[in-house]
Amino acid sequence: MSRAWLEGPRVEGSGAVTQIRPSGYQRAVSAILPADGEAARAAAEHHDRLTKPRGALGELEAVGIRLAAMAGQAPAEVPEPAAIAVFAGDHGVVAAGVTPWPAEVTRQMVLNFLAGGAAINVLARQAGARVVVVDVGVAGTLDPHDGLLLRKVRAGTADSTSQMAMTRDEAEAALDVGVEVADRLVDEGARCLLTGDMGIGNTTASAALIAHVTGRPASEVTGRGTGIDDGMWQRKVDVVDAALERTRASFGPHPDAVDVLASVGGLEIAALAGYILAGAARRVPVVVDGVVAAAALGIAYQLGPNVVDHCVAGHLSAEPGAAVLLDHVGLRPLLRLDMRLGEGTGACLALPVVQAAARVLREMATFDSAGVTDKDG
Amino acid sequence: MSRAWLEGPRVEGSGAVTQIRPSGYQRAVSAILPADGEAARAAAEHHDRLTKPRGALGELEAVGIRLAAMAGQAPAEVPEPAAIAVFAGDHGVVAAGVTPWPAEVTRQMVLNFLAGGAAINVLARQAGARVVVVDVGVAGTLDPHDGLLLRKVRAGTADSTSQMAMTRDEAEAALDVGVEVADRLVDEGARCLLTGDMGIGNTTASAALIAHVTGRPASEVTGRGTGIDDGMWQRKVDVVDAALERTRASFGPHPDAVDVLASVGGLEIAALAGYILAGAARRVPVVVDGVVAAAALGIAYQLGPNVVDHCVAGHLSAEPGAAVLLDHVGLRPLLRLDMRLGEGTGACLALPVVQAAARVLREMATFDSAGVTDKDG
Repeated sequence: MSRAWLEGPRVEGSGAVTQIRPSGYQRAVSAILPADGEAARAAAEHHDRLTKPRGALGELEAVGIRLAAMAGQAPAEVPEPAAIAVFAGDHGVVAAGVTPWPAEVTRQMVLNFLAGGAAINVLARQAGARVVVVDVGVAGTLDPHDGLLLRKVRAGTADSTSQMAMTRDEAEAALDVGVEVADRLVDEGARCLLTGDMGIGNTTASAALIAHVTGRPASEVTGRGTGIDDGMWQRKVDVVDAALERTRASFGPHPDAVDVLASVGGLEIAALAGYILAGAARRVPVVVDGVVAAAALGIAYQLGPNVVDHCVAGHLSAEPGAAVLLDHVGLRPLLRLDMRLGEGTGACLALPVVQAAARVLREMATFDSAGVTDKDG
Repeated sequence: MSRAWLEGPRVEGSGAVTQIRPSGYQRAVSAILPADGEAARAAAEHHDRLTKPRGALGELEAVGIRLAAMAGQAPAEVPEPAAIAVFAGDHGVVAAGVTPWPAEVTRQMVLNFLAGGAAINVLARQAGARVVVVDVGVAGTLDPHDGLLLRKVRAGTADSTSQMAMTRDEAEAALDVGVEVADRLVDEGARCLLTGDMGIGNTTASAALIAHVTGRPASEVTGRGTGIDDGMWQRKVDVVDAALERTRASFGPHPDAVDVLASVGGLEIAALAGYILAGAARRVPVVVDGVVAAAALGIAYQLGPNVVDHCVAGHLSAEPGAAVLLDHVGLRPLLRLDMRLGEGTGACLALPVVQAAARVLREMATFDSAGVTDKDG
C-alpha cells in the first residue's frame, strides 16, 4: 500500500469532514450484477461429476455454486488473497447508557489493531488475510500509522435518542469511504473482502437498522452486545425504539435507507455498507460477519438487493439481530461458534471454508478422470 | 517418511495377516492422562485478561481451554503441523445390500487419494495437513505407493449379519496398526492428528458400534450413508439389528468393546480407535470427524474413557449416529455444514478453528499490555 493512499488527500486530523462525493456508492449499486444462473448450473453439474456421492459436501457445495454465480464463471477462481477492512467509529448513543464499556475503548482498540494484538490480528494472520484499519468516525485523534486509513467523516455520531446521528451528507461520505476502501483493496490484489468493525455502542445502532430493514420490533433484534445485564438491555431496547420513533417523526413511516442510516448511525456501519456494495460491484465475494456488518448489509440490500448474491455470511453472531437480518435477506451463516466479538473475527474463521468451496470445484477429480465407479454407473 | 516405514516389515500383499501385537493399544490406554484441570483454569484466567469482552470468543475459548488441559500447559502450543491418516477397509456386510456403491470403490478411492484427486486431498492441502493412506483391510491388492502404508490385517471383513466380521486377534492387530500410525506421525513431527476413513459399507458397521456404545436402538443411529432410499435404509437397520443380536448371542448382554468390534467390524474402524487412543496417549489433540471416526471414538472411550479429553469433534456428520455418540461422550462438534462424505473432510475444515483457538491464547494482547480500559477497570 502506498503511503499516499494510507494518508490520503483527505487527512485533516480529528473531526475533519471528508470531501463529499455522494455518487460513489450509487455508482457501485448500479454496477452490481445479479447472480449468474448459468454459471451456477454449470458448477452444480460439475459437482455431480466429482468423486463423491452427490451432495455429500453439503454447504460446501452450495457455497461453491454461489461463488460461481458471483463470478459468472464455473468454477470460480479461489478467492485469495483476502483482505479485511476494520471500520472504526464512535457512537453518541453511548451517553444513553447502553454499554458498560467507555467510548475511549474504540480508539484504544484501534491502537491494539495497529499493534497486532487484537483477536482480529491473530485470526487474520492465521487465515492469511491482510488487515486494514479505517478511522471513519473515531471520537479521538489517531496519528498516521502503517495499516491505518485516516478517513474520518466526523468525530463520532451524535446521540440518536434525541437527534440525527449525522447528516445525510455525512452518511453518504461514509458510504463512499467504504467504496473507496473496497476499490483500493481490490485494485491492490484482494480477491475476497472480509468485513470488520469496531465501535463501542455499535450494536445499538445495528439493532435500530435491523429493526428498520426487517420490520421486527426492537426487543427481537436487540442483544446483549459485549456483555450487559437485564436493566441495561431494557434501556438499550428503549433507546432503539426512541431512535426509530424520532426517525419516523422526521422522515415518515417509510424513510429511505440513507436517511435511516444518518438518523441512527453509525459512521463505520455506513462505510461497511459502501464496502459491501463496492465489493459486490467488483465481483469479489464479500464475507459478511457479525451483527454490525449484518446491519450494514441490510442497508446495502435496501440500496441494491442484488448485493446479497455476492455475499457469504461468515459466523452467526450470538446477537439476535444478526440471525433476523440474515434470514430476511436469505443468507445462511457458515459457522456457529457462539462468538460475539465483532472485529471481523468470524469472517476470518469462515474464510478457509469459502476458499475450500472454490478449491473443491477446481481441484477434485471426476469419476471419469479417476476411474472410480459411480453408483449410478 | 522413510520408505522403510511406508512399506514396513509387514508388507505381505493382499490378504496377508499382520503379526499380532495385542499389547500396543492396551499400552496406549494405560498412558492416557486425564485433562489437566490446573492448565485449564490457567487458560480460562488468561482468556479473561485478553483484549475482548469475557467469553466473547465463545467456542473458540472453550477449545483453547481444552487444548491447554490436553497439553498440561497454558497456553498450549499451536497444534501444527497436522497430519491425517485415512484408514481404508472393506466390509463383508455390503453383500447384504446396505449401499448402492460397489465394494470395489474402496480400492478405487484409495488410488484417487494417492493421486491427490479426492476431496480429502483438496481440503488437506488447503489446511496444510499431511495425508497418509493406510490399507488396513481393503479387499483388493494395492501396490506400494508414496503416501500409502500397507498394513492389511485381512482383505475386508466377513458379513457380520451371519458371522464375526473378523477374529478378536485381527481386531487387536487392526487397533495396533492405528497405534503404530499415530506414533510414527507424532515421531515425524505431527502435533495434531486428524481422523480419516474410507470403506464402502462402513456406516453400517459404525451404526452397530454406536448402538452398542450408547444403548440406543439401531433405527435412531442408522443413517442414509452416502445416499440410500427408504427401502435400503430399512434393510440397513435390520442388518445392524441382526449383527448386534448375533453379537449378544455369542458374548452375552454386555460384550466387551473389542469383541463387539471384532463381531461387527470394521478393520479401518478398529485402526481408527487405536489411532485415537495413541494420539491421546502422546498428548496430541485428535480431531475426530464423521460418523465412522465417532464409532471408533466410542470403542476407544469404552477402552479408556479419558481419551475423550484429548479429542476435538470436527464437523457434525449428517449421519444421526454421529450426534448420538458425540453427545454420549460429551463432545460438541465445531462445524455443522451438512456434509456426509467422510474421508476426514470435516476434520480438515475444523483444523483452522482448532489452531486459531490455541493461537488466540498465545498471541492476543492483554488489557494491561495494550493499554485498553477493561469494562470492570
